[in-house]
Amino acid sequence: MAVTLVEYANESIDLARTIQMLLVHDLVEIDAGDTYCHDAFANQDKAEREAKAADRIFGLLPAEQGQNYYTLWKEFEDRETPEAQFANSLDRFLPLLQHTIAGGSRWQEHKISKEQVMIRCRPIEDGSAVLWQQAELMIQQAVKNGRLLT
Amino acid sequence: MAVTLVEYANESIDLARTIQMLLVHDLVEIDAGDTYCHDAFANQDKAEREAKAADRIFGLLPAEQGQNYYTLWKEFEDRETPEAQFANSLDRFLPLLQHTIAGGSRWQEHKISKEQVMIRCRPIEDGSAVLWQQAELMIQQAVKNGRLLT
Repeated sequence: MAVTLVEYANESIDLARTIQMLLVHDLVEIDAGDTYCHDAFANQDKAEREAKAADRIFGLLPAEQGQNYYTLWKEFEDRETPEAQFANSLDRFLPLLQHTIAGGSRWQEHKISKEQVMIRCRPIEDGSAVLWQQAELMIQQAVKNGRLLT
Repeated sequence: MAVTLVEYANESIDLARTIQMLLVHDLVEIDAGDTYCHDAFANQDKAEREAKAADRIFGLLPAEQGQNYYTLWKEFEDRETPEAQFANSLDRFLPLLQHTIAGGSRWQEHKISKEQVMIRCRPIEDGSAVLWQQAELMIQQAVKNGRLLT
């Protein structure tokens, strides 16, 4: 997805670093248990669980290599560099796309509102204005089709 | 795996290109159906099935982007550039590692011989002498433990 959509990043970015961040952040989520973004309870200790997981799995590696992965993971989480911002755009755009293709059944099951999805997806804009434009269109359409609560 | 083991590539390589090749070649295998490497019958039409799959899935994209992926896939398959050679090293090293960790049960189930695994793994050496050395040790150990036929 990063390779295919890199031309829509707001700034010229280092693709290799972006891909590495995307790969590494998923390792931490696998170890910590992925947290449903609209689950307020599970999100309370998400940062703590993930920091612990990062320590554990990157700690398995030789120090220099472990530190490199830890830095990549932290960069992704901090969302400050253009690479991290674009990586986070993709990480939030993908579920939106999947919900849209799936007809929003999970949104309806969990009674998710437009407001919740807007808050969740807003960081897409920091990495890619073009993807954010598409995201807004998908959200509007989902409201129109009754797939998201208003 | 490419990020973690890149220091063992025989030559200094472009990591981004290597990762892209690894990602892209799996897309083709998903579309064509992954072929068990020791299944002589399924391997007869593997190249043809995969070329057809590559045409189909890369053909879904805008021409320029599709061509870029096709080029990456072809580079992986041709195993001529240092990046393609290292990508292929990993693609062959990983199953060997997994068989070893799993105690070789699938090898035994299919009555696989040392010779078959040696032929399959030989290209590891073209991309990484270090990984090939490890591969040889794993294969020797598997023979010693009766997990591979001699």
